[in-house]
Amino acid sequence: MHSPRKGTARTVSVGPLPTNGKGVTRRSLTILGATGSIGKSTLDLVERNPDAFEIVALTAQSNVAALADAARRTHARLAVIGDAGLYAQLQAALSGTGTRVAAGPQAVIAAAAEPADCVMAAIVGAAGLEPTFEAARQGRRLALANKECLVSAGDVFMAAVADAGTELLPVDSEHSAALQALAGATPESIERIVLTASGGPFRTWSREQLQGATPEQALRHPNWSMGAKISIDSATLMNKGLELIEAYHLFPVAAEQLATVIHPQSIVHCLVSYTDGSVIAQMSFPDMRTPIALALSWPQRMNAPTPRLDLAAVGTLSFEAPDPVRFPSLTIAREALVRGGTAPAILSAANEIAVEAFLARQIGFLDIARNVADTLEAAEGRGLLAAPDCLADILAADAEGRRLAQSLLGRYV
Amino acid sequence: MHSPRKGTARTVSVGPLPTNGKGVTRRSLTILGATGSIGKSTLDLVERNPDAFEIVALTAQSNVAALADAARRTHARLAVIGDAGLYAQLQAALSGTGTRVAAGPQAVIAAAAEPADCVMAAIVGAAGLEPTFEAARQGRRLALANKECLVSAGDVFMAAVADAGTELLPVDSEHSAALQALAGATPESIERIVLTASGGPFRTWSREQLQGATPEQALRHPNWSMGAKISIDSATLMNKGLELIEAYHLFPVAAEQLATVIHPQSIVHCLVSYTDGSVIAQMSFPDMRTPIALALSWPQRMNAPTPRLDLAAVGTLSFEAPDPVRFPSLTIAREALVRGGTAPAILSAANEIAVEAFLARQIGFLDIARNVADTLEAAEGRGLLAAPDCLADILAADAEGRRLAQSLLGRYV
Repeated sequence: MHSPRKGTARTVSVGPLPTNGKGVTRRSLTILGATGSIGKSTLDLVERNPDAFEIVALTAQSNVAALADAARRTHARLAVIGDAGLYAQLQAALSGTGTRVAAGPQAVIAAAAEPADCVMAAIVGAAGLEPTFEAARQGRRLALANKECLVSAGDVFMAAVADAGTELLPVDSEHSAALQALAGATPESIERIVLTASGGPFRTWSREQLQGATPEQALRHPNWSMGAKISIDSATLMNKGLELIEAYHLFPVAAEQLATVIHPQSIVHCLVSYTDGSVIAQMSFPDMRTPIALALSWPQRMNAPTPRLDLAAVGTLSFEAPDPVRFPSLTIAREALVRGGTAPAILSAANEIAVEAFLARQIGFLDIARNVADTLEAAEGRGLLAAPDCLADILAADAEGRRLAQSLLGRYV
Repeated sequence: MHSPRKGTARTVSVGPLPTNGKGVTRRSLTILGATGSIGKSTLDLVERNPDAFEIVALTAQSNVAALADAARRTHARLAVIGDAGLYAQLQAALSGTGTRVAAGPQAVIAAAAEPADCVMAAIVGAAGLEPTFEAARQGRRLALANKECLVSAGDVFMAAVADAGTELLPVDSEHSAALQALAGATPESIERIVLTASGGPFRTWSREQLQGATPEQALRHPNWSMGAKISIDSATLMNKGLELIEAYHLFPVAAEQLATVIHPQSIVHCLVSYTDGSVIAQMSFPDMRTPIALALSWPQRMNAPTPRLDLAAVGTLSFEAPDPVRFPSLTIAREALVRGGTAPAILSAANEIAVEAFLARQIGFLDIARNVADTLEAAEGRGLLAAPDCLADILAADAEGRRLAQSLLGRYV
């Protein structure tokens, strides 16, 4: 059982940075997952601010063309492709550029260990665990876009971060918002951290309608353009449940101080309420370049070419309480957080299996949450939720969670 | 002419404070204007936190009973009544309590000079100028609720604050919100500071309706319970114009970086937008104890017994652009700010006369802004807007503004 705790405040401090001789601070940067959505947005900011950054390493899983192109444009010192079979292709694409080339999972991990002022950890899913852990051991700045490190491996990951003295900056829009709304706060002054959720495409649907919801309908997110997995998580609200777990590890609050509110416009990303009655909120147009820019430049702020928020033009911001009956994922995730041990890892693994099954039309929309809850119950029954000691324990729990969730899918057919 | 400037960042830092032997920081506090609305709310917080504060001095203009009562309850070392004729009454009321007693305007100024960790400057109107200037010379913390120091005497007042190294904390809800939304920001990262305005009781009224608006209608403020003068200022939006001038002096921005937005619910008090697309906003239930608590405890936060904000219960926050045709005061105030010199002092003085005349049914609602604009034009024509050098220049401009405004009232009858 997780003991209710108040973590220590993790204040963000930045030492003096090297300059480029023109008085502009210049940071060396590695991007793990440079060809995905976060990686591309990061590169966009880097290329708009060529005096501010120099690229140490770029990695990608399989998109050789995009990786090589980015490495050429940014004069990266190292480019790594995760799929070892693509080594020759990458080498050919970058021959004569001065960019070193490597391939395979170990080379991605080694790229994370290359000295850099900042590592942007943007590899999606469990594949990002090992490289991101490696980056966390650097003791420099880690801009974290990978969710699994905190959701599945939170305690172990945060211990690695603390041991190395790494400065951890979240890239999720909600957690970036929380960081800003918490700037300078002492833990005793914090009453609640409230993450907003758009409510997804099914916010106003009845439970009966949800029963028949199709993947096409679930993929139509109202505000953000995202991948399939995260769009489904947004439709079930599991996304917000996973973010509650992340927030628990990132910020010095107890689980019961974390809450969510439905906010269909996705303008306000997080609200922090304080003991004097004040609430500090961060807002922005939904564009990931804003939280990425913050993670790269905090506590300074760099320019980001994002649309500016005009509240008079927006007109209305609305808020409502989440409905636990239609969207049980939020409660399931919170219970996994309170249960602790490997429960969050099993939750995350089972959710991946259930979402895949829903997208493949093997199970219904409401079965996603059922499958996750059933998997956690089965894992508890088998004594599989003991506290993990290391990343290997997490990876074992992840595998077991996937196996169990898969084995239970037949129940919902 | 005010040269467009970016002021220097006024970062807030607090040195080590004395403790009361129980590890709780204990601050000595003087309240100028202890029996008014802000003074009473300050006393409420002090009395709820008896270990946190000790009272050096309390002052009031004429309410002997309330002053004596507050001095007894808080064991104030000094109580001062502004009206010298009430000295004997105050002395009788506090005999045997150990509280020293004094009376008269000079004694109020002397009270402001008594050494204290913090002075709450809550005397309303031009009467607060001299005592608040005196407090600004202390080089300690000044919690500022008096508007005239910044509106009428901004440049001179801020020079006195800077010379003494005084730590200035605004108590207005909008400026307290701005302070929080600006926490830790570098001036270069600030794009805009947007103050919210409720829009007052006439937000949806046509210009024709405004023509016939009565004092009774104008005094019905939708959200805040306030005095008559400030309620009328809220109905004309002059209140927000005066706050723009205050914000200009308090924060490191140029006049064109200051804006207003109408927000009828008065939940969001200020929004600061940054170069990375982020907007940080402060929200709270409309209760002055929240900004007062902040001014007393910043950068820590103390407990305040204010209603907590529940956005799901509030439901909707709405925003609209202010209408310069129906509410010209905002433009008039901005022009006075840009004009500089004594223009803001004349603006403030003329507005007081015009509001009094409206409350006395001598002029119509729309004549308030007309009177202010006409007074500024007349003052300019007579060469009265030159830059003031000292408080005496401001007081002379204030008197001249009142005289001019009064002389022009006949135009609107």
